[in-house]
Parts: sequence; C-alpha cells; structure tokens
Amino acid sequence: CRLDLSQTDRYYESVYNPCEISRVYISNQCVSSATPTEEMNGAGNLMDFLDEPFPDVSTYEDFHTIDWLREKSRDTDRHRKITSKSKESIWELIKSLLDAWSGWVVMLLIGLLSGTLAGVIDLAVDWMTDLKEGVCLSAFWYSHEQCCWTSNETTFDDRDKCPQWQKWAELMTGHAEGAGAYVLNYFLYILWALLFSFLAVSLVRVFAPYACGSGIPEIKTILSGFIIRGYLGKWTLLIKTVTLVLAVSSGLSLGKEGPLVHVACCCGNLFCSLFSKYSKNEGKRREVLSAAAAAGVSVAFGAPIGGVLFSLEEVSYYFPLKTLWRSFFAALVAAFTLRSINPFGNSRLVLFYVEYHTPWYMAELVPFILLGVFGGLWGTLFIRANIAWCRRRKTTQLGKYPVLEVIAVTGITAVLAYPNPYTRRSTSELISELFNDCGALESSQLCDYINNPNMSRPVDDIPDRPAGPGVYNALWQLALALIFKIVITIFTFGMKIPSGLFIPSMAVGAIAGRIVGIAVEQMAYHHHDWIIFKNWCRPGADCVTPGLYAMVGAAACLGGVTRMTVSLVVIMFELTGGLEYIVPLMAAAVTSKWVADAFGKEGIYESHIQLNGYPYLDVRDEFTHRTLATDVMRPRRNDPPLAVLTQDTTTVEDVETLIKDTDYNGFPVVVSRESERLIGFVQRRDLTLAIKNARQKQDGVVSSSVVYFTEDAPQLPASNPQPLKLRRILNLSPFTVTDHTPMETVVDIFRKLGLRQCLVTRSGYDRSVSQIYLEILEIQVRRRFPPPSSLKELEGILTEEWLQIPLETIHKLYESIPQRIEAVIAAKSRRTPYEIIFC
Amino acid sequence: CRLDLSQTDRYYESVYNPCEISRVYISNQCVSSATPTEEMNGAGNLMDFLDEPFPDVSTYEDFHTIDWLREKSRDTDRHRKITSKSKESIWELIKSLLDAWSGWVVMLLIGLLSGTLAGVIDLAVDWMTDLKEGVCLSAFWYSHEQCCWTSNETTFDDRDKCPQWQKWAELMTGHAEGAGAYVLNYFLYILWALLFSFLAVSLVRVFAPYACGSGIPEIKTILSGFIIRGYLGKWTLLIKTVTLVLAVSSGLSLGKEGPLVHVACCCGNLFCSLFSKYSKNEGKRREVLSAAAAAGVSVAFGAPIGGVLFSLEEVSYYFPLKTLWRSFFAALVAAFTLRSINPFGNSRLVLFYVEYHTPWYMAELVPFILLGVFGGLWGTLFIRANIAWCRRRKTTQLGKYPVLEVIAVTGITAVLAYPNPYTRRSTSELISELFNDCGALESSQLCDYINNPNMSRPVDDIPDRPAGPGVYNALWQLALALIFKIVITIFTFGMKIPSGLFIPSMAVGAIAGRIVGIAVEQMAYHHHDWIIFKNWCRPGADCVTPGLYAMVGAAACLGGVTRMTVSLVVIMFELTGGLEYIVPLMAAAVTSKWVADAFGKEGIYESHIQLNGYPYLDVRDEFTHRTLATDVMRPRRNDPPLAVLTQDTTTVEDVETLIKDTDYNGFPVVVSRESERLIGFVQRRDLTLAIKNARQKQDGVVSSSVVYFTEDAPQLPASNPQPLKLRRILNLSPFTVTDHTPMETVVDIFRKLGLRQCLVTRSGYDRSVSQIYLEILEIQVRRRFPPPSSLKELEGILTEEWLQIPLETIHKLYESIPQRIEAVIAAKSRRTPYEIIFC
Repeated sequence: CRLDLSQTDRYYESVYNPCEISRVYISNQCVSSATPTEEMNGAGNLMDFLDEPFPDVSTYEDFHTIDWLREKSRDTDRHRKITSKSKESIWELIKSLLDAWSGWVVMLLIGLLSGTLAGVIDLAVDWMTDLKEGVCLSAFWYSHEQCCWTSNETTFDDRDKCPQWQKWAELMTGHAEGAGAYVLNYFLYILWALLFSFLAVSLVRVFAPYACGSGIPEIKTILSGFIIRGYLGKWTLLIKTVTLVLAVSSGLSLGKEGPLVHVACCCGNLFCSLFSKYSKNEGKRREVLSAAAAAGVSVAFGAPIGGVLFSLEEVSYYFPLKTLWRSFFAALVAAFTLRSINPFGNSRLVLFYVEYHTPWYMAELVPFILLGVFGGLWGTLFIRANIAWCRRRKTTQLGKYPVLEVIAVTGITAVLAYPNPYTRRSTSELISELFNDCGALESSQLCDYINNPNMSRPVDDIPDRPAGPGVYNALWQLALALIFKIVITIFTFGMKIPSGLFIPSMAVGAIAGRIVGIAVEQMAYHHHDWIIFKNWCRPGADCVTPGLYAMVGAAACLGGVTRMTVSLVVIMFELTGGLEYIVPLMAAAVTSKWVADAFGKEGIYESHIQLNGYPYLDVRDEFTHRTLATDVMRPRRNDPPLAVLTQDTTTVEDVETLIKDTDYNGFPVVVSRESERLIGFVQRRDLTLAIKNARQKQDGVVSSSVVYFTEDAPQLPASNPQPLKLRRILNLSPFTVTDHTPMETVVDIFRKLGLRQCLVTRSGYDRSVSQIYLEILEIQVRRRFPPPSSLKELEGILTEEWLQIPLETIHKLYESIPQRIEAVIAAKSRRTPYEIIFC
Repeated sequence: CRLDLSQTDRYYESVYNPCEISRVYISNQCVSSATPTEEMNGAGNLMDFLDEPFPDVSTYEDFHTIDWLREKSRDTDRHRKITSKSKESIWELIKSLLDAWSGWVVMLLIGLLSGTLAGVIDLAVDWMTDLKEGVCLSAFWYSHEQCCWTSNETTFDDRDKCPQWQKWAELMTGHAEGAGAYVLNYFLYILWALLFSFLAVSLVRVFAPYACGSGIPEIKTILSGFIIRGYLGKWTLLIKTVTLVLAVSSGLSLGKEGPLVHVACCCGNLFCSLFSKYSKNEGKRREVLSAAAAAGVSVAFGAPIGGVLFSLEEVSYYFPLKTLWRSFFAALVAAFTLRSINPFGNSRLVLFYVEYHTPWYMAELVPFILLGVFGGLWGTLFIRANIAWCRRRKTTQLGKYPVLEVIAVTGITAVLAYPNPYTRRSTSELISELFNDCGALESSQLCDYINNPNMSRPVDDIPDRPAGPGVYNALWQLALALIFKIVITIFTFGMKIPSGLFIPSMAVGAIAGRIVGIAVEQMAYHHHDWIIFKNWCRPGADCVTPGLYAMVGAAACLGGVTRMTVSLVVIMFELTGGLEYIVPLMAAAVTSKWVADAFGKEGIYESHIQLNGYPYLDVRDEFTHRTLATDVMRPRRNDPPLAVLTQDTTTVEDVETLIKDTDYNGFPVVVSRESERLIGFVQRRDLTLAIKNARQKQDGVVSSSVVYFTEDAPQLPASNPQPLKLRRILNLSPFTVTDHTPMETVVDIFRKLGLRQCLVTRSGYDRSVSQIYLEILEIQVRRRFPPPSSLKELEGILTEEWLQIPLETIHKLYESIPQRIEAVIAAKSRRTPYEIIFC
C-alpha cells in the first residue's frame, strides 16, 4: 500500500468554513451586542468575495485529521437551516423529510449491497476453491458440492463423489487413482493457486494499492478522524471484491472476514456520496462508516448483533446511540440479504452453524481455561512475529518485490498444504468440520470412532466411544496442520493482497481445541473412574463434545490476536444460538485476553496502526504519566518566539512570509505584540486561500495592505493601500486550557471532543512579571518512533523540529508510557520581557 | 418518595480534594519551573493542617452533582500510587493485584446476589399470587403449579386441577362451585390484594421511602452524576425486595422488571462499599452501578446481552468499554444464578420462552407496522396521562394520602380484575399465554379452534383452523382486559409502592397483538382467495401465528413507552432465540418509536426525571438553538458585579462575608480587582472548611488575616496578623471557554467531560476598552418550569435570581427547544470601567 511515512508526516491542515465563522460572528452581533448588523459589517463590500465559499472549502487535505467539533457544528447548522426552511413551503417540508430519512436509506442500501457482495464472494470462493482440484462436467460453474447435489447418482454415504465431478487428473488422463494422478493433481493444485494469487497481487498493484491487507487498521484510523483519500473508493471496492475471491481461493492462510468489513465500508462511502448530508460532512460520513463496519461483520459471520458490538467495541471512535440503532438496521438488512442469496445452501445465516446435544460440566472449565492460555500465547506470538516480519518487509529489500513475495508464499503454502487433507481444503470448511459434533452418520475421519454394535440409540445422543485408527490418524494430521498454520499465517498477513485474520486465527484455535477435546474425551472414556470424571461422566454417557472444545479454542485464539471481548463472545454465541455455551466461551475469552495483555496491551490492529505510523489516539489507553500541559507544549522558553498574527498591524506580506517560513497548522491572533491577548485562531489553509482570493479578485490589496481581524477597520487615508478584512475566517472560540492542566485531562479532552488543536494559556503569573508568556499547544498525534531505551538513542532518531523540546521531557514521556507513545505534543511559546496579558 | 423540589433546588457544591490540588501544584514546581520545592513551599508550616484531609473531604453533599473529571483524575492518582508501590514489596504487589481484581470480584458478587434475589422474588410472587385464590393442603408454601405438579392425581388434561389445591371457598365451606363460593372467593381475593398492597405501602412509607416507583429515572439521574444518599442503600434493598413481592402479588397492574434493576443497583452499591477503590470514588462507583443495571435487566428477562445493551442505551451516562465487558460478565453470572435457582421450573433462562414453528411472510409486515403505530400511540397516551396524573398527585391533596391511594387503586383493580380470567391471573402468566402458539394439546380458551376431524398431523405443525366459540369469547374478554389495563396502569405507575412498567406495557401490546393476530388468522382462513393471502396462504397451511403478533405488539408498546431501540429488539430476540423473527420486531419497534417521537421525544423515564426535577443532561438531546455562551452567562452587564476573590488582598473576614452573602458553588480567584486576570477557581466548600480548620487549629489567624492564593506570602511585619495560605485548595486549571463559543459546544463539553462548572472568558476586546469584562458561567441543570408560552407567563414563574437574565434570552431559549429546557445557564459577570485583563 502506498501510504508511507513521508505522507503522514505533514502538518494536518484544515479550513474553517467561512459560513460557520460568519454565523458565529453575526449571531454574536445580533444577540449579544445588539448593534445593527449593517454597521458591524462596515466595509462589507470588501469582503464580498468571502461570501462565496472558497474553492475546496469544507474539505480536508489527504492524510490530515478532521475536526470533530467543527463537523458537528456544521451539521447542526445545516439541520437548523433545513428545519427553518421546512416551514416555508410544502416542497421544503418534503425535502426536510427526505433529508431526515436519508440516513435510513443509506443504511438500507449498505445492507443490500454488502449482503449481495458477501453472497457473490462466498459463491465465487466456493467455486474457485474447488476449481483447484477439479471441475464439474455438467456445468463448469458449479462447485463440487453443488455439482454432486444436483446429480442423481449421488448417494448419502458418498456425498462427495459423483461422476459429474472430475478431478483434473481423471479428466486429463482418465485415471482417477494412482501416483501419476496424484502428482498431476498436486501440480495443477499448485498451478491454480499460483495463478490466483498472481492475479490477485497484480490487480492490487496496478489498480488499487489500498485494496491490500485486512483494512481494519486503516478503517479504525479513518473512523478516528483521519483522511485517506481513495481508501474507501469505488476502485478499491471493485478490486478488493475481485482480489479477495482470488486470494481466498488460492488457498493462502487468510480469511475473508476482515476484508469484508473493508468492502462494506467502501459501500458505505459509495452511498454517502448520494446525499450531501453525508458526503459533505466528514463527521456524519464516519457515522455511516461505523454502521457499514457492523454490516460487514454481520455478513462475515451471520451475526448482526455481534457485528454491531464489534463496530462499537473495536473499530468505531464516535458512536452515538443513533448510530447504534442504524448500525443494527444495516447489519440486519445485510444478514437477511445474504441469507436470501443463500450461498451456503443451507438457509443458515451463520458461517459455522453448530448444534450440540450435551451440556458442558464444571470440570471442563479447566481445559477451556488452558485453551484460553494457549489462545493468549498464540496471540502474543503471532503479533510479535508478524509485526517483526512486516517491519522487515518495510525496511529491507523484501518490500520491493511484493508480487514475488506473494508468489513464493503461495507456492510454499500450496506445496505444503496439498498432502494434508486438513490444509488442502479451504480453511472455513476445516473450521466447520472441527466445530461439528460427530453424529452417527458422519463420514469424516475425525468421527471414526469404534461403535458399540449393540447401540441402537437415536442419532443425536451418541455416548462417548473409543477412538478408532482414523481419529488417531486425524490427530497427527491436525497437529501438523496446526504447526503449518501457525507458521504460514505469520508470513501471510500483511502481504499485498486482501487478507483477513479471523479465519486463520480461528483455525489455529479450532485445531488445538479439537485435539484437546479428543484427548479429554478419550481420557474420560478410558478412565471414567478417575476422580475428576467420576461425578459427571458415567460409562455410556455422552459427556465430552470435542466440537465445543474446537469452538472454545477458536474464540480464545481470535481473542488473543484481536483482543475483542464482548463482540467475540456475542459472535460465537450467535453461531450456536444458545446461551448454554456462553460460559465456556467467556472463560476462554477472558483468560486469553488476560494472558495476551500480560505480554503487551496491543491487539494486532493497533500494532499495525502503529507500524504504519497512522495517527490514532486510542480511546482505551490510559494516560498514566503525570506531566502538565506546560511540560509538553512548544516552543519552550528559550526557543524562537511563537508565530502569531496581530489583529490590526500585520501586513499581507508579513502573513505570506509567516506562511512560507513556518509549517504550522494555524496561528493565534493576538491584540498586539506588546499585549498578547488572544483574539482567536486562524487556520493556515484559510489564510492562504483568503489572501490568494483577495489578491486575485479584490482591487487595491497589495503586499503592504494591512490585514484586519477586528470587527471594523479604521478609516484610513486614501493614500494607504486598501485594508484586507479577515474576521470571517477567524475562529473566535478556540479551545484553550491553562498551563496547569494535567496532560491526562488534555488527552481526555482531545479524545472526547475530537479536537485538532488546543491553545495553552497561562493563568496567573509567576513571581516576576517578566516570566509571563503566551504559549500555544498543538497536539500532533504521531507514532513514528518505537520507544527508545535511552536518551542517546532518542537523540539519534529525533528530527530537528523535535529537538526544540528538551530531550528529558520526551524521554520522561516515553518512560511513563512504556509501551508506546501515541500523542507527542508539539507546542510553541513566546516569552516576552514585559508585562503582557495571557489569554 | 421524599425527594422534592426544595432539595434539588440548592446549588450543587463540591469540594476539591486538597491532595489532588497539591499534586498539580507540586508537579508544576518540579517539572516546569524546576525550582527547588522547599523554596516554593515557603511558609509551608502554615499549611500543615491542610496535609491532613479535611473531614468529609472527597465526598459530596446529598443532592449535589459530582465532577467526573475530578473523580477520574483521583482514580488515576490512586492507580499510580498503587503501581509505584507495587514495585516495593511482594505484599504491595499482591495488594495491587487484588486491587486490579476487585472489579471482577464485585461483578461476580453482584451477579450472584441479584440472581439469587430475582429467584427468591419469583418464587415468592408465584406463591403469594396463588395465595389470593387458594392454598395447597399438602404444603402451604407450594404455589398452585408446584402443588399439582407434585401431586400424583394430576392428569395431563387437567393440569390445573388437583385435590391438594383448594380454593378458599372450597376449604371453608366445602363447596367448590356455585354462586356462594364464587362470591366468597371474590371477596377473599380482594381481601388478600388489599392486605398485600397495604403491607407494601406501609413498609415503604415507614422504612424506605426511596423503595417506591420503578427506580429507573432515579438510577439514570444517579448514573449521570447526581448524589441521592440512601437511594441505593441497604434498607432500600431490603424493603424494595420485600415490598416488590407484595406489590406484584397484590395483582396491581405493575411488573417487577424495573424494580429489579433498582434492586440490582442496590446490590452493586452494597458491594462497592467492600472496596475503597469503588466506595471512595463516585465515578468508579457509577461504573459498577452501570454493570449492576445490566445484571438487573438480565435477570428480569433472562436476557444478558439485552441487559448490557439496555444499560448502555437507556440508563448509563458514562460507559467505557471496560465496563461493557464487566457488565456482560455480571449479567451472565446473574442469569446463570437465576437459572440454577430455576424459579419457573422449566430450566429456561427467559421469562417468556416461545418457540414458533412457522415463518412470517412479507404481507404480515402490514399488521406488524399497524401494531407499531398502536404501540407508539399507546406510549404517547400513557406518558401524557401518567405524567398529568403524577403532577396532580404532586400538587394537590392527593399526594398526602399515599396509603389510601394505594388501597383504593388495589381495591378497584381487584374488583374489576377478578371476573375476567385474563386479568385475574398474574400479568406475566397472561403475557406468557398470549405469546404462545396453540399446540394440539393446548387447553386454553384461546386455543379453542374447531379441529378438522380428519387431521392426523404432528403436534407442531397445525394448519390454520376456524375459531371456535371459546376463541370468540376470549376475544371479548381480552378486549375488556385491554381497556382495563390501559386505564388502570396510568393510575398505578407512580404510586408509593415498587412498580415496574415493562410488564403492564407488554401486556397491553400482547393483548392488542393477539387480537389482531387472531383476526388476521381468521381472515386468512376464511378468505384465502383474497389477493393479499393468495401468494402465501394456501388452505390447510399454517400461515399465521397469533402468538407472534402478541410478541410484536408487546415490543411495540414497550418501545412506545420507554423509547428503547436496540436493547428492546435484542431482549425480544433473546426470548425467541432465533434471528427469524427479528425483522417483525424491528419493524414494530421502529414504527412505534417514530410515531411516539412525533408526539414528543421523551420516554417515560425522561418524563419522570423532568417531573421530579432531577438534574439530568440527556446525552441524546440535540441542542439546536443558536445562542453563544455570552448570551446565557450570568451576571449580565448591568447586574451586580461578579463575586470574585483576589489572590493576595482578601481578608478572612471578606471571604466569610462573601460565603455568607452568596450561595455560589465557588469563586474565581483573580490577580486583583483592578486586573481581573484569572488565577484559578476555588470551591465554596473547600473555602469554608479550610477557614474553619485554620481558625481552630492555626494560631494567629484572625478575621483581619489576609488570605493568600499566591505561591508564597510576602514577609509581613510582625504586627500584622498571620497570613492564611490557601493555594492548595485552588484549582489551577479551571475549565474555560470564550464568550464566543456556541452553546451547543458548551453543552457538548459539559456532557462529554462531565464538568460541574465552566468559566467564560472574554477573548479580544470590544471597540471601547471600558466594555471589557470578566464573565463566569455556571451551568445549573434545572427542570423546574414547563415551557412557558409567552414572555408574560415566563415572568410569572421566574424567581428573583432568574430575573437577572433578560427575559428575552430565557424565552428565546425556551422557544428554540420547545419540548423542554434542560440546561438553563446561570452566570455571573463583572463589568469594570477600566482596562482589565480577560483571562
């Protein structure tokens, strides 16, 4: 993906909507001062050009952060305007009703499209996965199952075999069995896999670089307020859908669940553009995207409630209750659309439908908790190894050959996967088999138990039986598959193809769980006189369900990797549809999270956010160090003075010089250099656009024109150049904190209000008047550096601008939040030797 | 309940923890100024008494609001202290681990206790409800069902009849049938009902006035940060549990679900007191209470996920993700505890377990949506009528005779309820019967269909049949029951006994739904050639499930009254356990909410909060008017000046006078009266306590002592009285906004950060210097007044202090939020005629 450090590294600029400002301005005039507006607008004709919006106004630049407060305020304005207009005429009333309904319409469309896409992807993956092994002669577009399902010659015992379905060797040579056929099938399997993955990676490379990966880290970042243009675009949607099918079909160790969330978010973004309410407001757009993420998970697992909770817990940043309700609607529509497409052919909504017939027993909590520990350890191992590998990819030559890398990994995967029946098939099928309980009619190797010939029980309730040779054989193959999956997934996740992590993680857990489950089952069968089994497992009873262990293991591993909690349990609960097994799932999920958290608080998504250097302020992190705003703001006392504008003495040339010489996001406007009272804050982008416009359109504005931020400009002699009035672009209510504010509060304010910058003002004064100074704090969220271990190391990695902050301060920051530093606060200050006013 | 207006009417005071302030202070010294601390603390011995906490420090007064930021900051401090200590010794490490685990322990205990209490309540209600009709001879503590269940003489057809269970008339006179027996039974039914309700209301009156009502409005208020001492106390817990049983058993039209939430919150509060982490921090305590509310709903409906969502959506104010996970745990533990008690005798977790055998059809959405409309209308009607009646109770003589009122309503209820079999039994049983589908063996009157004699189908899948006379009879009785329930519930909810609203609302909806369902069913049976039925309802098919209609109706009515959305659907979904019927439920819930919202945005809980005058700032409300902070702050320019303290010229006497003369929550400290730069904010309560302490414990502090808020006091001649240094109680980082800040932003900040007050500072200056002034804004949330329709009316209801705000401003506020005014901003300002500094 082409998002790299140099791009995220800029200052995040934005522009205040001049309409917004003028609203504040006018409102102020009418209500508080109660002076006639005409008088106030004074030389209003000078600003006429400001009445028309600037080009590009109310948009943000790419890789910049939005201002949530501003977006919210703009939406409220828009809403007010529509409400007041709606009283004027019937047509306006209808328009206002349509506007109120547009949210629901968008949700409906998202649900329909993402459900449809998920269904199409499922069908295509099914078909192409089977294409690697053979083809349906009666209709080549049938998958193996569909092919034999429609055939009349299929018997119940040999569901998988029918004459219409031919393996490649059989089709080509006529021999279905034998070494030659095996080798030919093996070869073609690898060939198809390579072809699919080559297609996938090429399409991604050429058409939509953003279509790679799972997309969830980026969506989290976008939802937190960052702009990545094109990440949710139409091309990405199209290419991601196509390449997702190819990538999953190629047999790589990846899943479609994460990318489906990305696909759903692309749908959300697409439909946003239909309604100006959403397309023109980045805040509202993010509400829609949150709901779309819920719809994505909903179709991925067939779990609408789990999807909503996933969106709430895992990906969303701002999730008002209104969005909760709409997300639920979108998730439901998506789930039902998918069900009416019925890709699994069983009318089931869920990906892995399971039904167990026996309860679980208290003593089983011990293996469940052990599975939780395994899940936590696997999560830690996976995250560390995967991040290390991804970092290597970023920093070494490896990253330059993404196509080769994909080809190589696919080749290795295919070569190793084919011989083992449990890795040859698709991972979802594997998980499905592992989850299932062994019925009497099950033909799988895993269900090769030695039946009691006297048994004549109903199908559902089979007692524990001794394992047959097939089971032991399967255990070995599963153990190999486990090791294979663990290793290959580490290298697969992060390649330049769409790749989800849910399915591989669940597969690892399910394999481990099933192995443990069979072990416990056999122990209980052979040693039911042991004290631990005595109470609940009499001979002839069905006490242990290995499928449940697989499910618990899957939950544990998924929890270890993603650190999901409630949403994980709810998704799993929706798979079984009963509260019965929620306690085992919960025990495993809790243990897994605790174990994994002991080694590091970050889940895989946070780690990838950090690795890619996206600006993201985690809501869940606790900011535990003790610094005050005064310790982190910039500039320090001995630094060059703060770049400020004065309200009525700066010339156009001064402003242009300031813009050219600095790269700050914006500038505080003060009364005068002698009396640095804060008037407001002006955004860099506004200033640039306003001056450019004025120079082009307004006569008499020259370099020596004075820029006025006051309400009216004084009457100047005719010889002076025309003044430039810019009060309309001035934000009169910049957010300020005092320098004594603890940083934890500052960070809290940033998170909860979604600010972009915050000014620090000095309250009171020090003992000597000369120490009073004005300070401005700008938070820029960065993740460029790994936590340095020493001051010396820190010095090495800091760029020039960082050096303005004393190293000790930065290092103290790092020490106090050892895992990572999310918010590095860059600030600018000014010390003046005479009495000035702190604003 | 004894909470009345005069008590909520005070200013909400709080006290800043001096430790907290001193932390900020010291931290400031060490880190930023880097001056030796000793020098800074100067005359430190003068303040020694401040090192010991004041009595009552870090607590709030009753009926005051907490400061969330402060509570959070205190918890972070505590956490830091424990973390740094834990490195010192093993014992401290264990203590820190115990501290980290205490949250989970509290959740476990809450789950266990609330589950147990719910089970006990269920059993007791069952027994006492049946006691009104008769008694079990074999064991008087058996309920009717248990009695006949244990009897050997019970046949399947006559499940309800067994010789051990005797009605009162039979027991007394020996005659089970006949007019005399009926009258005697009738009489005793009324007598028992009166006895139960008299006991309930008397216990509430005498022992725990807070035990009345549903408790949810108060819990919402408490969770939003208000303090009502004793509302969640041990006595309330005990009395509410007992009286809840009595009230429900008395046959009044009320449910136990809302009060169960109150009971669970009492449990949460009880267990909070075990751990100082929770008992000493009002913010953390509220996290526990949120989880307890989830556990309460979980046991009320057997719906743990629904419970968590209810807590998130409906009652909680601050719900971090950590709490979500813990709530889920508490809800699960509670649900499983209840299940192991097994009060319903069917091993089911849920209150109304239903299983339908037929799907629903698209065309049925029409009646479902009609039921939604009915639910919305009923919700509106109920809220308006109930609030009007409750207001009448508050303002007239009626409120003075709560016992008589309860007795009267019980009498009327019992007299009217007994003749109708659908109202005679308990409401939950009624709902349960209405929800159920008619099986072949159902003996209920509602299932008196005319069977096709040729039919030999399995029990589950019975085709639609013509209704028999029993069904028509039942329809009439249900219609009467519907009217009865609608009317009596309006008068019942809000009486001085524990009363929940969920069950009566659901009952109304279920009756209406069942009637509609039977109507549709019979239409479909008799007119299956109609175009609307043609496509999906062939003769002999089972197309309409009246029970589903009942369920949809119940959801619609519950939604109309409470305005729940997601949690409502999830609770209902957990009852059926399948996603199948979620679309009908959702359609009804959405329609109901829309219809009800069209008549007024407030649910019953918000209406009761408003009625009782609790301070509550609803998170969901959109603040749409256009005012700026400058328009609403107090005092206005022509008002008496702002009450401020100066940093080094105020004497102890001045301070005492100020405290005596004003009733403000706190005072801004400024540099001097000439130069009103803001130094900080000092809380009234701190000031009072500090001066009281100093006068008692510190020699030389007299009325003429100067109070210093500066870092060090100047060296005074020995003749001067000892100065009093109070910098430690000064909040150096008060929250400020500029006067140009739009009120929507201010309200947003109040909501999201949980502030108690906010200072307004003036940025920039007006054209003339003399207009600069310092202004302070204090938000006080009040709901005292209904929206006035005219300025004149407004004038009539305003008290003196309100008159300081121009009437136009207040009226504009009222106009812009027509339904109600939640946040009235009281502010104080000062205008000085000379240049001063705005801080």
